[in-house]
Amino acid sequence: MIRVHRLVENPIITPGMVPPSRPDFEVVCAFNAAVAEYNAETLLLLRVAERATSDRKTARVPVLDTSSGRTRIKIIEFNRADRRIDFRDPRCIRAPSGFYLTTISHLRLARSTDGIHFTVEPRPALFPESESEMFGIEDPRITKLGASYYIAYKGVSPRGITTSLAVTTDFISYRRLGIIFCPENLDVCIFPEKIKGRYAALHRPVPKMMGEPNMWLAWSPDLLSWGDHIFVMSVRPGKWDSARIGAGAVPIKTQDGWLEIYHGASENDVYSLGAVLLDLEKPYLILGRSNAPILKPTARYERRGFMPNVVFTCGAVRHGECLRIYYGCCDEGMAAADVSIKDVLKSLGKHKTRSRHR
Amino acid sequence: MIRVHRLVENPIITPGMVPPSRPDFEVVCAFNAAVAEYNAETLLLLRVAERATSDRKTARVPVLDTSSGRTRIKIIEFNRADRRIDFRDPRCIRAPSGFYLTTISHLRLARSTDGIHFTVEPRPALFPESESEMFGIEDPRITKLGASYYIAYKGVSPRGITTSLAVTTDFISYRRLGIIFCPENLDVCIFPEKIKGRYAALHRPVPKMMGEPNMWLAWSPDLLSWGDHIFVMSVRPGKWDSARIGAGAVPIKTQDGWLEIYHGASENDVYSLGAVLLDLEKPYLILGRSNAPILKPTARYERRGFMPNVVFTCGAVRHGECLRIYYGCCDEGMAAADVSIKDVLKSLGKHKTRSRHR
Repeated sequence: MIRVHRLVENPIITPGMVPPSRPDFEVVCAFNAAVAEYNAETLLLLRVAERATSDRKTARVPVLDTSSGRTRIKIIEFNRADRRIDFRDPRCIRAPSGFYLTTISHLRLARSTDGIHFTVEPRPALFPESESEMFGIEDPRITKLGASYYIAYKGVSPRGITTSLAVTTDFISYRRLGIIFCPENLDVCIFPEKIKGRYAALHRPVPKMMGEPNMWLAWSPDLLSWGDHIFVMSVRPGKWDSARIGAGAVPIKTQDGWLEIYHGASENDVYSLGAVLLDLEKPYLILGRSNAPILKPTARYERRGFMPNVVFTCGAVRHGECLRIYYGCCDEGMAAADVSIKDVLKSLGKHKTRSRHR
Repeated sequence: MIRVHRLVENPIITPGMVPPSRPDFEVVCAFNAAVAEYNAETLLLLRVAERATSDRKTARVPVLDTSSGRTRIKIIEFNRADRRIDFRDPRCIRAPSGFYLTTISHLRLARSTDGIHFTVEPRPALFPESESEMFGIEDPRITKLGASYYIAYKGVSPRGITTSLAVTTDFISYRRLGIIFCPENLDVCIFPEKIKGRYAALHRPVPKMMGEPNMWLAWSPDLLSWGDHIFVMSVRPGKWDSARIGAGAVPIKTQDGWLEIYHGASENDVYSLGAVLLDLEKPYLILGRSNAPILKPTARYERRGFMPNVVFTCGAVRHGECLRIYYGCCDEGMAAADVSIKDVLKSLGKHKTRSRHR
């Protein structure tokens, strides 16, 4: 069992710390943040899920409206007494007119000088703005390449779940670069350097007719176009990652291989974190994989919340031999935990320095 | 109603014309062929579906086996008396050990000097050879770019349905270029020229959680990597293309726009062909779309066969104002029909020359 040091300050981000983007909204969740180190600060790019103020008679759902040519938020009202509408799931509403999310997510920056105490900015960094983002933008991952920070984020709309790319050099202005993975694809992590002359990314397509939600790798000449897809690894029946898996943190380069902290969900929707070690030059080859999770929901804030029993990472920061994993807990807030990279590699049976002495 | 001239020779390809790839196989279907014009010949690259010789007691299913490092066909036997196994669908077997196709498809060339009478080559042109092709390769489309013929084809495996690319300059040797669209994606048609400096392709992702099997467009700098995905058009409830749509023939350039012959399926699985006209410079913009199908299954060979009531195209050939659409009928054989491009454009309300005189 790997020693995991949860911060005593956990949860380090709660929804109450985040001002809503408009007065008739309330922030329900602030979670699944990408992480970057920039100008001696640790930055979290939070997914902030907001709900339109509703009451006992009427549920109000915010969606992006692009029909007039310019984008604005439209509030759709549902009568709670209408028996044709299914309100049971707190995350969504199933109505005769279609499927809706109860919240709409945007991305918001939080800054810290110690990596623990964060100040949340008052305004969104990236707000949904296109048809493919009608239900919100979610779960970003930040990859630094040169002086640019590339943000791969999920766009949700009635047309499906896509992954788009944006870029910033200052975390003040952002440039959108379009959809890089078509429906249904999420959990995209771009490697932090070119491998044999090409960019690489882990991704998680979700097929319908046959196939499981498994992890794949793609290559790119320009970060915008992706191809030469290759299967990496699958869910494992009977294990902690039996139902769904997906890349979590941007891969970390070690002497033994690319260390990827990924999430796995079991059949009963418990989300845990584990690790996989990928070959440095052929990152679709697996050198080791966690039999047991590194981090599973055990702390109170990981077990009770908007979606119980969920830990989900979109980023980690390495300081020497220490890896600080930032992770969303219960789809509601953010926490962090430190692990030793040596310990993780040892648990995968693949730490070269140690194994030489065995 | 558009005048459609079915060839009197239809069906022009039947399974009986195709020798099996090995003595213990039988050819069940020869259909959904890509088409190319090459050296004064019309070439059809057929999808040939083969079945392992089975009997009343035992069903034998061929799959590709790559476990030993080299690829070979493995025959899996199923006891027809085993009640845990579902044999009802002629296309597949659902067993406790997984999902299997009853046939395995490869691609086979047929040559003609008149575009009507074809000679089928004795050996496969492309045979499944990788893990992503374990259940076969299917439904190719050929796009000529310079002196090269690019073949986008579907690979089917337990990991999902992908689209791969191969290239040939002589239709004798073929070079595989890898998976260009990850699961679940099919009906990929690459445009026959660059548009504003980039390659373009229509594709049909199939999302699981939300979204319909709709048509999208992607861009590429190199034909191998695809991105900047953009939604093109959706299924239309209540119409002939209500359940599924997908690009069919490689788009044909006209003065009015890119003419795309696509397939649509209704809720009761009737597959018909219609047209959509796309903007020449922004080929994700729709200028016109068939309200009624151009070709729907009415001839006997289109209504009765392996899968009844299916017409499905993977290619067409233009000679002046005449468009010859080659199409699979009932997932079993090949037929062809001629239409006037002017008539098709008129039916879309978009033939400029005519509309100027109205």
